[in-house]
Amino acid sequence: MGLYVYKFGGTSVGSVERIKAVAEKVKRVHDQGDQLVVVVSAMSGETNRLTALANEIQKYPNTREMDVLLSTGEQVTTSLLSMALHELGCPACSYTGGQVKILTDSSHTKARIINIDDKRMREDLAAGRVVVVAGFQGVDEKGNITTLGRGGSDTTAVALAAALKADECCIYTDVDGVYTTDPRVEPNARRLEKITFEEMLEMASLGSKVLQIRSVEFAGKYNVPLRVLSSFTEGKGTLISYEDDQMEQALISGIAFNRDEAKLTITGVPDLPGVAYKILGPIADANIEVDMIIQNIAGDETTDFTFTVHRNDYEKAKGLLDSVCAELGAKAVTGDVKIVKISIVGVGMRSHAGIASTMFKALADEGINIRMISTSEIKISVVVDEKYLELAVRALHSAFELDREPVES
Amino acid sequence: MGLYVYKFGGTSVGSVERIKAVAEKVKRVHDQGDQLVVVVSAMSGETNRLTALANEIQKYPNTREMDVLLSTGEQVTTSLLSMALHELGCPACSYTGGQVKILTDSSHTKARIINIDDKRMREDLAAGRVVVVAGFQGVDEKGNITTLGRGGSDTTAVALAAALKADECCIYTDVDGVYTTDPRVEPNARRLEKITFEEMLEMASLGSKVLQIRSVEFAGKYNVPLRVLSSFTEGKGTLISYEDDQMEQALISGIAFNRDEAKLTITGVPDLPGVAYKILGPIADANIEVDMIIQNIAGDETTDFTFTVHRNDYEKAKGLLDSVCAELGAKAVTGDVKIVKISIVGVGMRSHAGIASTMFKALADEGINIRMISTSEIKISVVVDEKYLELAVRALHSAFELDREPVES
Repeated sequence: MGLYVYKFGGTSVGSVERIKAVAEKVKRVHDQGDQLVVVVSAMSGETNRLTALANEIQKYPNTREMDVLLSTGEQVTTSLLSMALHELGCPACSYTGGQVKILTDSSHTKARIINIDDKRMREDLAAGRVVVVAGFQGVDEKGNITTLGRGGSDTTAVALAAALKADECCIYTDVDGVYTTDPRVEPNARRLEKITFEEMLEMASLGSKVLQIRSVEFAGKYNVPLRVLSSFTEGKGTLISYEDDQMEQALISGIAFNRDEAKLTITGVPDLPGVAYKILGPIADANIEVDMIIQNIAGDETTDFTFTVHRNDYEKAKGLLDSVCAELGAKAVTGDVKIVKISIVGVGMRSHAGIASTMFKALADEGINIRMISTSEIKISVVVDEKYLELAVRALHSAFELDREPVES
Repeated sequence: MGLYVYKFGGTSVGSVERIKAVAEKVKRVHDQGDQLVVVVSAMSGETNRLTALANEIQKYPNTREMDVLLSTGEQVTTSLLSMALHELGCPACSYTGGQVKILTDSSHTKARIINIDDKRMREDLAAGRVVVVAGFQGVDEKGNITTLGRGGSDTTAVALAAALKADECCIYTDVDGVYTTDPRVEPNARRLEKITFEEMLEMASLGSKVLQIRSVEFAGKYNVPLRVLSSFTEGKGTLISYEDDQMEQALISGIAFNRDEAKLTITGVPDLPGVAYKILGPIADANIEVDMIIQNIAGDETTDFTFTVHRNDYEKAKGLLDSVCAELGAKAVTGDVKIVKISIVGVGMRSHAGIASTMFKALADEGINIRMISTSEIKISVVVDEKYLELAVRALHSAFELDREPVES
């Protein structure tokens, strides 16, 4: 007998029929004797409907009231799922974030969880009831309703699993696990049985939008084994946990990529202390997020400075950089929006030399020119021309033999 | 400077435009320096939408979960109205029933209010904020969400007004007050400036569905002056309060009627102790509500027994009565579904003789046969054939000069 936290997203509970299907699934597990806490999102479309109502009234809705409004979406799902469980003869009880209670700070629309009171849930579980909790929401010290921001239901699930010391936190979604890369780009992409938190973080932040980064960080911090699996098909999904003896011993776990990047370079910058700050300060002040940053010595006493931003921010960043260029007496600003970033990710690379050279050779063999390189402990990223994306991903997938099941060592 | 509780029903907040109109009205009062607590219902149609979702899942939805579901309707309205007030520069803060908190018993879908904590509302009012409260809902001792049943938002408003010792509880609705009778039947019907709680109770229970009976009882019990007025037109509406020197000194305040009644008679019942119980016991056991009850001596040692029920319950009641008839050795069961009840209501009749004879003469002058008569302290009811309804109401309206403004005595 185990204790599990299940989380079902908006698509999984998007209609009465789907809610009934979720109830069937939950009942089967409950009948096996496992204890279950189920976290649900708002039915798909509901959050957008409510947001549209608010926007008809205020362009920038009052954030406290926005939380009061949006939190009703998940509350509706909890009651409907509980009814569906009752209908199947499975005892269940719904709770809002405030009822649990999930205590957060008072940062409306992006609150952080401070504490979770597990008393009431434990009583229900001990009495054989399924506990159904509204995701995405909590309550501050004064009793005001708060929300955790988009994707917050994943965070709720992980936080509950941590508070209850659950055996696993299972995130049911519309994909059946984490893949070695995007199957739409590489048909040989393979579902991973297991992946580490660190790898998942790198994969998530690079565009494999299976899980919210914050919930992965949270799970890692509290060591909650996280499983991603499909609401619609059977299967074991992908388990995200810490490295252990059972972990696949692959050098590389997966290949992530990001199409939305743009590259900006300022050349001939006088190589003086504080120059990086003078370049990136105005960018940060404009709330533009910077991804890769590379600085190279170009010639005597000058340097070239390159960074990538989201493609939507390119024009704005270019304008700011032109001013900085004049101010610093640099040579020129150049840019490119037709680039992509491709990264290979794997904890295995920490202890193996030659990963980088295998990567670069695979790309060279296909005649793909590398425009930028950046590395971390468990990741090597390259920037290449956009047109090479599919070719590069497939070449790397093959070079690292990701289509093959790893051999246990 | 006064303290007022305003209540807006579902039609009054049925769209974003109407919510904005309510906000304008509230802001004008707030700008005058009055303190305001505003109770809102769910947007019209929302409760039905949610109920339909529940019914797709359970024929008889779990009542605890039904309350969780339905309570979201009012919560949505509170947030939208608060946003609309913020947009007008009027500080406001929304609360669910649980946040206020409105403590109820645990009778889901028909809970009763036990206590109201006014601390948080008083703090907001003192800080110059409009307090917006979700009607219809509360929370039990364990923190479960409860609802007060249909029309419960009126009850919430009255209860808040009582707890806050408000100067008035103003119920905004789609009619502009309480009339001497239904204007669709008698075009000369006149809006009453004032009416007593007792009169209003008689009017309400007889079909003038302006206010829920329960909220009128509640207001009377806690002596909360209640005002009914229109959300859509200007006007002072009708004030419902206790009799005082200022009260209109009319003999009769209004004429109520009820089309939904049916009459059942059992004749030749042996006149023995316990016979009334033997007749009405099975009716009550079948959850059929009985309205008027009349027993007459018919002949030697037998009696005739007549009562009225809702027309929908007629067939069921007739079947039960047929069995009782055989059991008691009574003569026969007869019935009529084409009857209506018409009542004249007024505290003035307590101290005046001749009201009944004026009533009976007015009906006789029109050739209307009276089938049943029943009286109370402030009401005389007659049952007549359905076809006479309009004629009878107009004759009585005219006989008691209800179209004329009363003269202050």
